[in-house]
Amino acid sequence: MTDAGASIGVFDSGVGGLTVLRALQAALPDENYIYLGDTARLPYGTKSVETVVRYALQAADELVARDVKALVIACNTASAAALGALRERFAPLPVIGVIEPGAQAACAASVSGRIAVIATEGTVRNGAYQQAIARLRPDAVVQAVACQLFVALAEEGWTEGEVAEAAAARYLKPLFADRAAAPDALVLGCTHYPALRGVIAATIGSAVRIVDSAETTARATQATLRAADLLRTGSGPGTLRFLATDGVARFASVGGRFLGRSLDAAEVQLIDL
Amino acid sequence: MTDAGASIGVFDSGVGGLTVLRALQAALPDENYIYLGDTARLPYGTKSVETVVRYALQAADELVARDVKALVIACNTASAAALGALRERFAPLPVIGVIEPGAQAACAASVSGRIAVIATEGTVRNGAYQQAIARLRPDAVVQAVACQLFVALAEEGWTEGEVAEAAAARYLKPLFADRAAAPDALVLGCTHYPALRGVIAATIGSAVRIVDSAETTARATQATLRAADLLRTGSGPGTLRFLATDGVARFASVGGRFLGRSLDAAEVQLIDL
Repeated sequence: MTDAGASIGVFDSGVGGLTVLRALQAALPDENYIYLGDTARLPYGTKSVETVVRYALQAADELVARDVKALVIACNTASAAALGALRERFAPLPVIGVIEPGAQAACAASVSGRIAVIATEGTVRNGAYQQAIARLRPDAVVQAVACQLFVALAEEGWTEGEVAEAAAARYLKPLFADRAAAPDALVLGCTHYPALRGVIAATIGSAVRIVDSAETTARATQATLRAADLLRTGSGPGTLRFLATDGVARFASVGGRFLGRSLDAAEVQLIDL
Repeated sequence: MTDAGASIGVFDSGVGGLTVLRALQAALPDENYIYLGDTARLPYGTKSVETVVRYALQAADELVARDVKALVIACNTASAAALGALRERFAPLPVIGVIEPGAQAACAASVSGRIAVIATEGTVRNGAYQQAIARLRPDAVVQAVACQLFVALAEEGWTEGEVAEAAAARYLKPLFADRAAAPDALVLGCTHYPALRGVIAATIGSAVRIVDSAETTARATQATLRAADLLRTGSGPGTLRFLATDGVARFASVGGRFLGRSLDAAEVQLIDL
């Protein structure tokens, strides 16, 4: 029997998924977490589906060996490529990806059915959000835009100021230029993007609802654990462990920006996958 | 005996090294070239030295198997980590890296001895340029700055306009704020950066000489081949072949920006290392 006190395993190709971990901690502060960032092999977005599935299975094996009670794939590319394979391999362990919760929240947030998705080149190209939204709401009109520079801006910590504002304007203004056809909801379809939420909101205006797949994934995880009677509550603040496959110092320095608190390299354990 | 008609092998972790290939073609248009981009395993900048050496040896093996007459390492990280290992393994084959020529040109370009180096985080941290410049000119004062966003800007094709200008100002203005202590030469220490040369020059002003390691590496290659009597001249335009380890379509679309001409995916052969 799985124990409610066991940890939730969170997996990403790097540090971007720490925005999902942060949302999980906010929603479920009593839980214990183990976060694995496959920093040696990032980025996943440019790799073939077969390779991403193989990497995701290796990372999940590592987390499952540490007796996790659920797996959260805090990476859009890995969610799109490997969710089915992970569920099959580890059933009945709950496995939650970021795309389905993001698509559900977008459909709920949009009145007009016109939805913008911003994501990495890989996620836009493989169409995972477009398909997930179309399954839920066949009449939706989805415009997907790759905002590659947002990843670099978030990693650099340039989440406000002139560079971020100019980049947001260049990517997003064209989507909203025709007011009559403008989307009324925008999905942050990359785990790096919540770091830029402020500048994105200022660019597109308050009439557009922003869907943060980190938050919606946290809520989906909560619902899944509750249904399985695996929620850990009332035990006080849970523990947090970090694993990375390379670059522990960089994981700590850049990761702190996504986690929202400073992170010491000594907190991060180097592992080999 | 090596034949002057044999190709020059050029190796990079991705597409950035195409700026070096472009400079080589401009300096040595009659030569034949084989370019290998290890796109499946980029970026190298965040990986350990041992791993980069192993990857560089594998890539070089692949090029040497195609009978190249010289190897150009068009990647700062690989030059810093693997130049010695490559020269040892393939002697007497000439192996040219980008760092030594860049450092030489910087020392020649600077009057004051105050030299700025802009590069990736990995290259700044490992200090390869700082050491190479110090060996040539012990009194030089080197300021090295990581300009991570320039890679994303170059890959996105945003090499001019408001975003590039604001980023260049944020990275570079502080270096030149104190006019009395400002560098008089700046090294483009990453193969992506020549794409942003215009905006960099406009930011730092015409009094600062810009050293493009692509150009200086091309001249070093020319000198090396001439000394070995291996220059191919007067034979008309040489041939060009591209090898990549993943993402042939992206290699072509992004690579074209660095090569300075459009590149078709059919020109790029997918190989496994």
